Amino acid sequence: MKEKKIKVGVIGAAGYTGGEMCRLLLNHPSVDLIFAQSRSQVGKLLSEVHIDLLGETSLSFTNDYSEQVDVAFMCLNHGESKQLLSNSPINAKHIVDLGNDFRLGDNSDHDFVYGLPEWQRDKIKKAKKIANPGCFATAIQLGLIPLASHGLLSEVHSTGITGATGAGQALQPTTHFSWRANNISGYKTLTHQHIPEINRVLKTLQPNFNFEINFVPWRGDFTRGIFVSSVLNLPQFETDIKTLYENYYYSHPFTYISKTMINLKQVVNTNKCVIHVEIVGKKLIIHSALDNLLKGACGQAIQNMNLMLGLAETAGLKLKPSIF
Amino acid sequence: MKEKKIKVGVIGAAGYTGGEMCRLLLNHPSVDLIFAQSRSQVGKLLSEVHIDLLGETSLSFTNDYSEQVDVAFMCLNHGESKQLLSNSPINAKHIVDLGNDFRLGDNSDHDFVYGLPEWQRDKIKKAKKIANPGCFATAIQLGLIPLASHGLLSEVHSTGITGATGAGQALQPTTHFSWRANNISGYKTLTHQHIPEINRVLKTLQPNFNFEINFVPWRGDFTRGIFVSSVLNLPQFETDIKTLYENYYYSHPFTYISKTMINLKQVVNTNKCVIHVEIVGKKLIIHSALDNLLKGACGQAIQNMNLMLGLAETAGLKLKPSIF
Amino acid sequence: MKEKKIKVGVIGAAGYTGGEMCRLLLNHPSVDLIFAQSRSQVGKLLSEVHIDLLGETSLSFTNDYSEQVDVAFMCLNHGESKQLLSNSPINAKHIVDLGNDFRLGDNSDHDFVYGLPEWQRDKIKKAKKIANPGCFATAIQLGLIPLASHGLLSEVHSTGITGATGAGQALQPTTHFSWRANNISGYKTLTHQHIPEINRVLKTLQPNFNFEINFVPWRGDFTRGIFVSSVLNLPQFETDIKTLYENYYYSHPFTYISKTMINLKQVVNTNKCVIHVEIVGKKLIIHSALDNLLKGACGQAIQNMNLMLGLAETAGLKLKPSIF
Amino acid sequence: MKEKKIKVGVIGAAGYTGGEMCRLLLNHPSVDLIFAQSRSQVGKLLSEVHIDLLGETSLSFTNDYSEQVDVAFMCLNHGESKQLLSNSPINAKHIVDLGNDFRLGDNSDHDFVYGLPEWQRDKIKKAKKIANPGCFATAIQLGLIPLASHGLLSEVHSTGITGATGAGQALQPTTHFSWRANNISGYKTLTHQHIPEINRVLKTLQPNFNFEINFVPWRGDFTRGIFVSSVLNLPQFETDIKTLYENYYYSHPFTYISKTMINLKQVVNTNKCVIHVEIVGKKLIIHSALDNLLKGACGQAIQNMNLMLGLAETAGLKLKPSIF
Repeated sequence: MKEKKIKVGVIGAAGYTGGEMCRLLLNHPSVDLIFAQSRSQVGKLLSEVHIDLLGETSLSFTNDYSEQVDVAFMCLNHGESKQLLSNSPINAKHIVDLGNDFRLGDNSDHDFVYGLPEWQRDKIKKAKKIANPGCFATAIQLGLIPLASHGLLSEVHSTGITGATGAGQALQPTTHFSWRANNISGYKTLTHQHIPEINRVLKTLQPNFNFEINFVPWRGDFTRGIFVSSVLNLPQFETDIKTLYENYYYSHPFTYISKTMINLKQVVNTNKCVIHVEIVGKKLIIHSALDNLLKGACGQAIQNMNLMLGLAETAGLKLKPSIF
Repeated sequence: MKEKKIKVGVIGAAGYTGGEMCRLLLNHPSVDLIFAQSRSQVGKLLSEVHIDLLGETSLSFTNDYSEQVDVAFMCLNHGESKQLLSNSPINAKHIVDLGNDFRLGDNSDHDFVYGLPEWQRDKIKKAKKIANPGCFATAIQLGLIPLASHGLLSEVHSTGITGATGAGQALQPTTHFSWRANNISGYKTLTHQHIPEINRVLKTLQPNFNFEINFVPWRGDFTRGIFVSSVLNLPQFETDIKTLYENYYYSHPFTYISKTMINLKQVVNTNKCVIHVEIVGKKLIIHSALDNLLKGACGQAIQNMNLMLGLAETAGLKLKPSIF
Repeated sequence: MKEKKIKVGVIGAAGYTGGEMCRLLLNHPSVDLIFAQSRSQVGKLLSEVHIDLLGETSLSFTNDYSEQVDVAFMCLNHGESKQLLSNSPINAKHIVDLGNDFRLGDNSDHDFVYGLPEWQRDKIKKAKKIANPGCFATAIQLGLIPLASHGLLSEVHSTGITGATGAGQALQPTTHFSWRANNISGYKTLTHQHIPEINRVLKTLQPNFNFEINFVPWRGDFTRGIFVSSVLNLPQFETDIKTLYENYYYSHPFTYISKTMINLKQVVNTNKCVIHVEIVGKKLIIHSALDNLLKGACGQAIQNMNLMLGLAETAGLKLKPSIF
Repeated sequence: MKEKKIKVGVIGAAGYTGGEMCRLLLNHPSVDLIFAQSRSQVGKLLSEVHIDLLGETSLSFTNDYSEQVDVAFMCLNHGESKQLLSNSPINAKHIVDLGNDFRLGDNSDHDFVYGLPEWQRDKIKKAKKIANPGCFATAIQLGLIPLASHGLLSEVHSTGITGATGAGQALQPTTHFSWRANNISGYKTLTHQHIPEINRVLKTLQPNFNFEINFVPWRGDFTRGIFVSSVLNLPQFETDIKTLYENYYYSHPFTYISKTMINLKQVVNTNKCVIHVEIVGKKLIIHSALDNLLKGACGQAIQNMNLMLGLAETAGLKLKPSIF
């Protein structure tokens, strides 16, 4: 007898994360994509907008998301998820919100669970609603939570670089090819919106962590991926930081400790995060890299769905890597 | 009861095509990768050389390829396959050779079948040995065989551009980043080694095709993919060229006719070939695009294996596209 | 006594070609940039919009172009030059129009001279108004006029690729970084607006040239430059095509015949055009490359100014090349 | 009467910095390039190796550097300058060494002056021998010396990214296009060879600066340029850091303070360094950018020559910027 498929829908399916959700869901072995909602593209084939889906699906965009689904993925601009849910509750047993509306605050504010499996997988397994973490937030947190969970964090200086897809599909001067090609620039120095997400998790794990993350974000001249280097003081009493990292991620299927220096493309088009730990003099340096659209967004959303529904954590996420 | 897996090996597994074969085979649902042969990397983990495979496999490179397998993939430099097979026959029921040693000639010379499924799928299904087509050869042939099969070809002018992975892993001046970034250059004008492959197939389909393909290859400043535009005279008596293309590829799961202009990244990291047909005045223009490492090499090799072994033609080739 | 400087103004100075005109004029030893007109940026410093001019000039954008100048450069959208001149004649002794409003037609239509110095330098020297050629038109014409001037042209198949600056500063889907990076696509196949420019010049030189240029334009994933390969039949009776090219360009300071294959970056950030001629079997192949913003636009505009005013043809155009 | 030109020679003229020295010297109005030495390219035309010099010079490479010159530029691998000078003293009134052989140490070790004009212009004016600073060293020092000169430095965390030309012309895995395109990676974390250069200058200016620079270098996926962000504590008693920077660089013709966020391409193909200063909470952030081959190498070498010879500091360095 044929397995019963999980019904899913994507709200906001025409943008970058919306498209990437559709690509993953169409390839997920246990899932049926029931609807792909978009206000701007109603009636068009998915493959007319996401042209790499030519031949993959005959689905068209709809503006109707009333059909009942097991999981709804919300890929909206920041602020819009809260608004949509208060106007017209969606007919879904589980929700994964990829925006930042429910990442902060706690259960007195809302009933979303922060969906970083490497931090709180058991809580996610029991959740109905997930606030999917930000891309930079995921990369920096995965680099630091093993330390924080042992109370070893000191002041952190992180620099991170992100690809153009991180800025979304809207046409902007800083996503114009002629500006961005071969270019590097800073933005939102020490004020990036993911900093509160990061601080919240780190301070929960290590209550005496009295710093703000000093995070300098850069715009990179590539489309996909995030690379972060974080520098902090080497804890005085540790014995083996690298083993601590190995142990922390031992049971987690997507986060790997590399013995050699990592590079960004190592993880592009996968749901992995790779981490490399260095000790130089009295400093500890953590490098981490992930694909901003996958482990930094849609891949992690699938991972959270898998956990909530009791599927294998890696289901639909065994992606052929693409290092070149 | 667990399905019995197909045993496969890769000979020459440390290069670009060797690595891509391993990535595909590790993700193929019906396959067990038994050995990955390399002379230069013996004893190293696959994931030390192909670092994006971190966490995907614990296999190490070996120089021993004596174990019996169902399929052996040969990813050697041109000329080396013939030499290896004459020195030390490999213990495989089926062979797919990704080099150019057996692409030309006929059964009086060797017993390899030219593995272009869109041309001779039935012959491939019965084959034991496959000569896998060249990357440019595949892109140009898929653009032209519907015409040739109806005797509609006239003199063809093709210009094609290829990514740096097409030049292999060896360090060369023209693969130095500082040279190639933001650059375009020509090479092997009208003398590219794939021209005889193309001419052979076209002349088999249309015996009165009395031209050589005029093919101008360019080096592009990207890593993956091939884009070709071919111009020829519009046949005088045809009625509907576009329908002819649609019909030709109707039963082929990887080649698609796009109603709108195609672009290279539409197919990157997939096994697809997309084709767009234009008629302007008295000229017919065929644009075709594919990923040189997949439909132009390793993906097509898997497709040929699937056909030979009676698997679904698309098994292991449902890859998440990666348009950005 | 200090040399008296030539007064110049730029109309439409905020776009890509407008900015490049300012960069060149600010570095030209015999020129004073009097005004930089823009409707959208009135009052802003040039260096606020063209931020690489930080420290080079204290000039601000103005919407007033009434001050008398020796030369006015018009860097407007196609169609706007004609409109502006009919509404409010500009106060300039010489005009160089970088748009396409006056490139076609003849003296019965307007009094602009087509500014391709390698074709009609003497006519340009006596001109007051110049219609500056298109970028693709310049690259293709420089590749073909030595043949046309000897009546040796046959049907031509040209493929050309252009950088993103060729599409201007406006935000469009095809100039979005996430789309264009690592991508190639076709557009305006055999219908590009520069084809009539090219045909007009070629047919003037070789009246029995009865073809249209078959020109396939591609969008490239780089910012600057044009590379074109043109294929035609080798003339039957010629003896030495390469010497014919050498002789044709002997007296021209910016166009060079290269004995080896050319590449695009060889000319980026210079006013040069490099050409490489190949003979393969019975075919003749001409490769040409130039910088679309310089020899394909603003550099050629300066060259035309120099010729009209009796300056050295290369004045202000001895630019440090930038091959990396 | 024609001005008498300064005679110069380049030793090690076939590499990236050697080629860039030739480009600059050929365009310098007061200079005659007498010889371009290379062991590997003896007898070849400069324009056969540096093909963008086609038409610029008829000079050939020589292995003979015995001719007397006013200035010799040494563009050798690190360690080779010292060796060459001890083996066969060169016949030059002034020397600029672009390697790192004489950057450290003091007059008891050698008689080279560290050539950072923004630090010690007057000393350079009287020098005969210059040790030209490293590229990262220049970018970081220019970002920090205004603070150090006022004793305001605290512990510094710098992250910097460099283009592929920084790694030189040799073929290496990390300069292979297929590896480097769209990639980011770290290297030499906190151990880069420029750190001692930086520390020496900062500690000379601020003797109580008791830290090592925490410098994390990254490899970028572009050819030219360096971008650095440095974070430190905001000095407690300062009044106006931005004015302090403005004042410090007021008399220096190549270093500019930008009121808005800078980007890398703003300075590519120029001798400029641009700096942007931000204050966020109790932190001070300094961003700096320069072209590694110009202000980070050959442009600064010319600047040092100009100062030693009493020429205008900017002579030969008024380069057309190239922001796209």
